[in-house]
Amino acid sequence: MSKQLGQRIFDELEKIVLIDPHSHINPHSAASETLADIMGYHYYTELAHAAGLPRERIEEPGLDPKEKVSRLVPMLAALDNTVQVSWLIEMCREFFDFTDDRITPDNWESLYDTAASRMAEPDWEDRVLKQSGLERVFLTNDFDDPLEGFNTDRYIPCLRTDDLVFHLAKPETQERLAKASGIEPVDCGSVVRAIGQLFDHFKSRGARACAISLPPDFHPGPVDQSTVEPILQSMLGGRSVLTEDESQVVSRFVFWTLAEMCAEHRLPFDLMIGVNRRVYEDGVHQGQDLFDSRTSLLQYRALFNAFPQVTFPVSVLAQTSNQELVSYSWIFPNVVTNGHWWYSNIPAYIELDCRSRLEAVPRTKQIGYYSDMYKLEFALPKFRMYRQVLAGVLGRDFVIGRGWSEEEAVSLGRQVLRGNVETIFNC
Amino acid sequence: MSKQLGQRIFDELEKIVLIDPHSHINPHSAASETLADIMGYHYYTELAHAAGLPRERIEEPGLDPKEKVSRLVPMLAALDNTVQVSWLIEMCREFFDFTDDRITPDNWESLYDTAASRMAEPDWEDRVLKQSGLERVFLTNDFDDPLEGFNTDRYIPCLRTDDLVFHLAKPETQERLAKASGIEPVDCGSVVRAIGQLFDHFKSRGARACAISLPPDFHPGPVDQSTVEPILQSMLGGRSVLTEDESQVVSRFVFWTLAEMCAEHRLPFDLMIGVNRRVYEDGVHQGQDLFDSRTSLLQYRALFNAFPQVTFPVSVLAQTSNQELVSYSWIFPNVVTNGHWWYSNIPAYIELDCRSRLEAVPRTKQIGYYSDMYKLEFALPKFRMYRQVLAGVLGRDFVIGRGWSEEEAVSLGRQVLRGNVETIFNC
Amino acid sequence: MSKQLGQRIFDELEKIVLIDPHSHINPHSAASETLADIMGYHYYTELAHAAGLPRERIEEPGLDPKEKVSRLVPMLAALDNTVQVSWLIEMCREFFDFTDDRITPDNWESLYDTAASRMAEPDWEDRVLKQSGLERVFLTNDFDDPLEGFNTDRYIPCLRTDDLVFHLAKPETQERLAKASGIEPVDCGSVVRAIGQLFDHFKSRGARACAISLPPDFHPGPVDQSTVEPILQSMLGGRSVLTEDESQVVSRFVFWTLAEMCAEHRLPFDLMIGVNRRVYEDGVHQGQDLFDSRTSLLQYRALFNAFPQVTFPVSVLAQTSNQELVSYSWIFPNVVTNGHWWYSNIPAYIELDCRSRLEAVPRTKQIGYYSDMYKLEFALPKFRMYRQVLAGVLGRDFVIGRGWSEEEAVSLGRQVLRGNVETIFNC
Repeated sequence: MSKQLGQRIFDELEKIVLIDPHSHINPHSAASETLADIMGYHYYTELAHAAGLPRERIEEPGLDPKEKVSRLVPMLAALDNTVQVSWLIEMCREFFDFTDDRITPDNWESLYDTAASRMAEPDWEDRVLKQSGLERVFLTNDFDDPLEGFNTDRYIPCLRTDDLVFHLAKPETQERLAKASGIEPVDCGSVVRAIGQLFDHFKSRGARACAISLPPDFHPGPVDQSTVEPILQSMLGGRSVLTEDESQVVSRFVFWTLAEMCAEHRLPFDLMIGVNRRVYEDGVHQGQDLFDSRTSLLQYRALFNAFPQVTFPVSVLAQTSNQELVSYSWIFPNVVTNGHWWYSNIPAYIELDCRSRLEAVPRTKQIGYYSDMYKLEFALPKFRMYRQVLAGVLGRDFVIGRGWSEEEAVSLGRQVLRGNVETIFNC
Repeated sequence: MSKQLGQRIFDELEKIVLIDPHSHINPHSAASETLADIMGYHYYTELAHAAGLPRERIEEPGLDPKEKVSRLVPMLAALDNTVQVSWLIEMCREFFDFTDDRITPDNWESLYDTAASRMAEPDWEDRVLKQSGLERVFLTNDFDDPLEGFNTDRYIPCLRTDDLVFHLAKPETQERLAKASGIEPVDCGSVVRAIGQLFDHFKSRGARACAISLPPDFHPGPVDQSTVEPILQSMLGGRSVLTEDESQVVSRFVFWTLAEMCAEHRLPFDLMIGVNRRVYEDGVHQGQDLFDSRTSLLQYRALFNAFPQVTFPVSVLAQTSNQELVSYSWIFPNVVTNGHWWYSNIPAYIELDCRSRLEAVPRTKQIGYYSDMYKLEFALPKFRMYRQVLAGVLGRDFVIGRGWSEEEAVSLGRQVLRGNVETIFNC
Repeated sequence: MSKQLGQRIFDELEKIVLIDPHSHINPHSAASETLADIMGYHYYTELAHAAGLPRERIEEPGLDPKEKVSRLVPMLAALDNTVQVSWLIEMCREFFDFTDDRITPDNWESLYDTAASRMAEPDWEDRVLKQSGLERVFLTNDFDDPLEGFNTDRYIPCLRTDDLVFHLAKPETQERLAKASGIEPVDCGSVVRAIGQLFDHFKSRGARACAISLPPDFHPGPVDQSTVEPILQSMLGGRSVLTEDESQVVSRFVFWTLAEMCAEHRLPFDLMIGVNRRVYEDGVHQGQDLFDSRTSLLQYRALFNAFPQVTFPVSVLAQTSNQELVSYSWIFPNVVTNGHWWYSNIPAYIELDCRSRLEAVPRTKQIGYYSDMYKLEFALPKFRMYRQVLAGVLGRDFVIGRGWSEEEAVSLGRQVLRGNVETIFNC
């Protein structure tokens, strides 16, 4: 492929204004305040730690942001090959007039100060959104988030349900549920009603999706009420330690209830499949999770069959699961491919996954990318990385390989980047 | 790689006249009669359904072929990115003088009519074969197929054995076996003799392979006769519901018997490994099957060791199984790589699989491709897709990467496309 | 990427003098004496056997080397596509003035004779090392190797521990341990002390690593002494047949002890994960082992957490495990990526694995390649294959994709090829 062809397609894709269908943005503090908000992103702290920086140096209580950055900067020399650090450099060049190729002990301080002064400007958040070509951003809200005090048209609520499914045995989860719903959970019926209340609330505030991350061995299915009722009652009555089997019954029950609520409230249910939590126990914050590639979408067979009216945008953590995702989306009307998650979010894997999806999944059923970001500044480099890979695939496989016009190729790109987010999430 | 080099190699590969080593052609009606035969191929119905067309609209009883096509056509806009639809366009352009890039509600009807009139010409079947560069085609025959009334030199019988291995508990399977073999199956001995009769019959009609598709968790092995005998006798005596363990014993016994017959009758045994049937229960016909990538050729260890005299052409459904297939073929004399099956049959996966096989498996042990087609018209675009990928790999990895001459590269291509089909299946 | 760019980077990488961090070199006979030493490498014998040469023809007792080569040569026509045979041709061209593209029944004999005379020259070993740009070579030493009579500065000892972990039930292993350590193993305490002695000895002779290959289902963890003590005592007391559970307890105990010794003696512990031994029972020597891709680094969670002070250079046999390796190295400070092992050691897989590692693992934590060779002559073609892939990735992904200078790209290549071997193994 000529460099020019790829560049032309990329330039067209860069013009597309986006809705980001999954992020961890805090809508009350969406943009960064210092470079420490950017470099404190777990990708950098965990890579710096993996390369040798002690966790205590990174997570020292009360650490001044500038001091934190000064500790992380020397580690960048060991990390400059990573695509994650390439995002960092790109942010600094795009937003802070940084002109060097690398951030070093010699040049970081002026960069830090420039960034801080830019970020302090009152319209910083708006400018980042505009410069990033970003119109709306999906959030990841705790189930008891009041969803107040922010513009829900710009920051779209999304009901995150990990705590309900996997941590309902904890008294604080039960209390949060009671408080958020106004219903004391004491048995199956009240748990279902309480969850229904959450959905009502989220829907009334414009939520466009329910979401959850799931361990590789999770196997959803309907649970017999006579099985779950005694466990749930005793658990909600104060028995916080459950056997593994009992925990599973509760998780399956709550999960299935969520799927029923998604059906009732016409919400897509984002499944992010495959994460094992706290594998590296002494890792930095959010840098402890890994995965087991031995997982299969076959585990979701009962779910996909039972809820034809619910759309399941599915993300897989293991790249080796991508072919299953392609195949299940090719067959099941209610399964759609969703972005490139976490450990699969690097160009080598995005390219293969993007190619296979574009070759075999209906074009209406592919959500190309989401940022997964914690701070707004990350959308630009992350989406740009994806647009570069996408432009290459469109150029090579469609324009050259199949004789499509460049307009047709860009139109396919636009659909997976933006159009399908609108149609699938009804936003 | 220059475009010219790839094109030159592709042009040479296109000249090779083929024997298609696996299809589902009905030799009594090998070519299509209307466009509905082509667009009724499960790839299109399942993709259309996955993109939103209700199954009832596709599978309405008594549906007129033209009406069926008219219902499918509007869905193509959602599917035009897929490689499967690119086959469709290619067939229409090659066979029916179609000149547009897409089939739409505006242009489909004249295409339908042109196709119907072409297909009605008396030499249509021959012309398709000739235009496709196809000399002989392997079939997939039910075990009780009389194999009569067609040219078995052109359409080569292949004994498909799924029903025997996985559905012998069904009375109709037992009856079919009794009728086809002339032997009433009542115990191990009579089952073995009956199966032997099938092999005799198939061999006498020119069969060149025995074949079976297998679920991901199948684990073949020899079965102790004292274990299987009582189960088999009770099952054949009328007990049609078996426990899962009993079913497995029967399946393993029949499967092992088939391998013994392959040894005795000197037939290769095609193993198509990894399909789960009826995963999507409400899917369209043949659009219900998926897979679980958690499978391993290690499950076939006992088989490959026990039958050194039987050649096993192995297809894997999960692309993640390809490396095992490469490695097992590199070590076991009796394991050979066979095509790119179903969900792995898209260029992104074919390319990676083709490269790894050409790099590490003896060139004599690779069957490059089969069509898996139900109607003859599909051979052309499917084999062409493969030839394009193959030409790219030969050009990049062998001519440029290793300094081979183009003739040497084409010769390698010829061997995997045609030569090995002849030697491995003795045809 | 222009051919010139890739070539320039490759030329620079070719200048780097290497330390080979894993081989099976016999330091008392490091180079080959005849072409049979090269063609007797299991890659050729197993491929020739897989392509049809009976094992008896290859492994006939007392077979003359020249006769052995004469039997293997005719098989090369079936194998000339493999990258392994491309190494062979490259060795012959580089070392023996061979000018043909293929070794055939017509030209092999003069090649054999030329090789034999070259190999007979007194400085052959030194010349091979020099011509290959190889400075030091890690060995794979039996735990009872006296490590005497060779230059341990050139040939660096490495303590291989498979026998201890998996074959301690065998009386000969116990005897070897007793003899090598001077301690009679009779219980946990004496086994630990005996193993400690081995570490002392190896360290005193300059060992730089402990190493082991592990089956896909191995799951290390600490073992309760009250569990292992009675099993170990009875086993060491003469009971050589253990249940599978008992074997596992012993293996886990010894493995954990090795990790403790690595911590105490500050040695990296090379883990080569994923091989099943003797899968093809009638295969040629070293051509019997395969794998099961259903394995996960999650099985090593307890180990990686328990020994933060031990560096684990990890090799995976299944290419499908590479993403886990990338992710675990990205998170765990003590996990580093190590080469491309065996069935993953072909360009199609190296390329994908190399790209993903360079994109997501700290550059300080990647050991690019090792030869795994049995004879010195193999280093040149094997490392060259890797350097070619690496040059391509550096050119495409870093120089073109990220705008790095060629010098920066080469510097990254130098670090993974050489620098990290020095820092990680402290040599």
